[in-house]
Amino acid sequence: MDIAQLSEKIIKGDRRALSRAITLIESARADHREQATELLELLKDTNRQAIRVGLSGTPGVGKSTFIESFGTMLTGQGLRVAVLAVDPSSARSGGSILGDKTRMERLSRDPNAFIRPSPSQSHLGGVARRTREAVAVCEAAGFDVVLIETVGVGQSETVVAEMSDLFVLLLAPAGGDELQGVKRGIMEMADIILINKADGDLKPAATRTCSDYSGALRLLRKRPQDPEGFPKAMMVSALEEEGLRTAWEEMTSLVEWRRETGHFDGRRAAQARYWFEEEVKQRLLARLRTPEAQQAMGDAADAVAEGAITPTVAAKRLLESLND
Amino acid sequence: MDIAQLSEKIIKGDRRALSRAITLIESARADHREQATELLELLKDTNRQAIRVGLSGTPGVGKSTFIESFGTMLTGQGLRVAVLAVDPSSARSGGSILGDKTRMERLSRDPNAFIRPSPSQSHLGGVARRTREAVAVCEAAGFDVVLIETVGVGQSETVVAEMSDLFVLLLAPAGGDELQGVKRGIMEMADIILINKADGDLKPAATRTCSDYSGALRLLRKRPQDPEGFPKAMMVSALEEEGLRTAWEEMTSLVEWRRETGHFDGRRAAQARYWFEEEVKQRLLARLRTPEAQQAMGDAADAVAEGAITPTVAAKRLLESLND
Repeated sequence: MDIAQLSEKIIKGDRRALSRAITLIESARADHREQATELLELLKDTNRQAIRVGLSGTPGVGKSTFIESFGTMLTGQGLRVAVLAVDPSSARSGGSILGDKTRMERLSRDPNAFIRPSPSQSHLGGVARRTREAVAVCEAAGFDVVLIETVGVGQSETVVAEMSDLFVLLLAPAGGDELQGVKRGIMEMADIILINKADGDLKPAATRTCSDYSGALRLLRKRPQDPEGFPKAMMVSALEEEGLRTAWEEMTSLVEWRRETGHFDGRRAAQARYWFEEEVKQRLLARLRTPEAQQAMGDAADAVAEGAITPTVAAKRLLESLND
Repeated sequence: MDIAQLSEKIIKGDRRALSRAITLIESARADHREQATELLELLKDTNRQAIRVGLSGTPGVGKSTFIESFGTMLTGQGLRVAVLAVDPSSARSGGSILGDKTRMERLSRDPNAFIRPSPSQSHLGGVARRTREAVAVCEAAGFDVVLIETVGVGQSETVVAEMSDLFVLLLAPAGGDELQGVKRGIMEMADIILINKADGDLKPAATRTCSDYSGALRLLRKRPQDPEGFPKAMMVSALEEEGLRTAWEEMTSLVEWRRETGHFDGRRAAQARYWFEEEVKQRLLARLRTPEAQQAMGDAADAVAEGAITPTVAAKRLLESLND
């Protein structure tokens, strides 16, 4: 594959080239990894910048409907929108909303939108690194907004927040007085909380939930990266397409403030450091996944399990044998 | 230090030698690590085996009082007891119960007990590997029971379960009908749940809590490593020293059953594999912590943060430069 050519096509906005590039990035093959690395370095020079929006929400909050409505609203404003996913549950059934493009029929046919399902699973760290690279490719391809969605499970929010300029938490109206068991850590990551389904019978519950979260957010310590009034909770109805425009205005005003105050660049710089260190660790650990290393580790693990050698000594010898 | 001599002293039951050995194990110095590795290999040949009891409980459940009473009951039966800790919060204030030996005054003066506070913190993986090695040293020193305690935070239960023959969860009587927010994952690791403080005014609440947990445990899927009736919930009062003997009988009967059915050895073999793999990974990643590597990583991270190079390319080059 001619990487320079692929790079040029991506920059010109060729969607097939973009798809091929992401497939290349997701590949585990060593030669593909080399090419992907080269491609990323070429694309870096475009200096194009999208607004990267991390979006988390547990199943049932209407995330696919939200992405459909929100994305369509954005393209209606002339913006180009890419949707990517970090989905730790894609191995299991029904976890990935993006696996089911039919649930975003309108957006997936929109020429100004690009939807990419989550890559087939492996460990979260691996998938997330590739998604971050896919975000960079979408930026170079000239998208104005990159939505990175994740289902609210375990650590996936953290890695999505590490590749987003702002982090949006999507919630459904709560039944009672409970805060839906949203973990404090996730609350603290959110820049904007959107209570979806603020329509029909659920409107009163949405209003109450929104007020509960507004109160809870006020209790959190003010972060330096927030202007007055942020983080904030708002109501939207993806179904009736209400509140989406206002939500977007809040997002852009937040981004603008952060750009002016240097927090936008500061966050990106910190994220680049984070992913660099992550990449170093994962590349180093990848040495243990070669067939030879796997064979040697299996043999050593057997000896350890039989009690013939301690784990510590076996580990020392193994690393020495893998030409220390 | 003469490691062969140290080893012999430990096997003879010399407590100062035991303390020195654990200090050696906890040291980050490369030569100490070499010596510790050698020592572990020598001690392995004693083939002595303790019952390793993992013990978890959040602050406030009376864990130090429990260890004091339970440990004293065990030494009263002629057993030798070692108490170690995996404490992810030891860096913060007040997290470690073992940092405060005065709270276990009786046990700490007992000639048949050995209490070792948690090593000063570093990342959990690092501390836990050393605690597992300390457990092995205590076994070789002839202790009959090794209690490995942890405060119920994050991943620490998982690593303690990975070095224990059985896992005990200590809880306080709950106020209401709630299951104290014990995470399902931790419930599923427990072999025995002990409701502490079943005394005085709290007795009725303890009874209710015990019944709630018994019910909850029955809902969990039966695990192959459990005989009929396990996992189970029981009441104890560490303060009034009630139920401790019965709890110990349950523990030993569980261990006996697992020994007869092969689950005991099977679990130890699986744990040895786990720690071997963990040791390999951590030793590999330790190459990034040399002063030269830290310097190179810092420089590269700066270039990445400035946008001069992508994280991916920078990581590739860094690993090449650290003589790939």
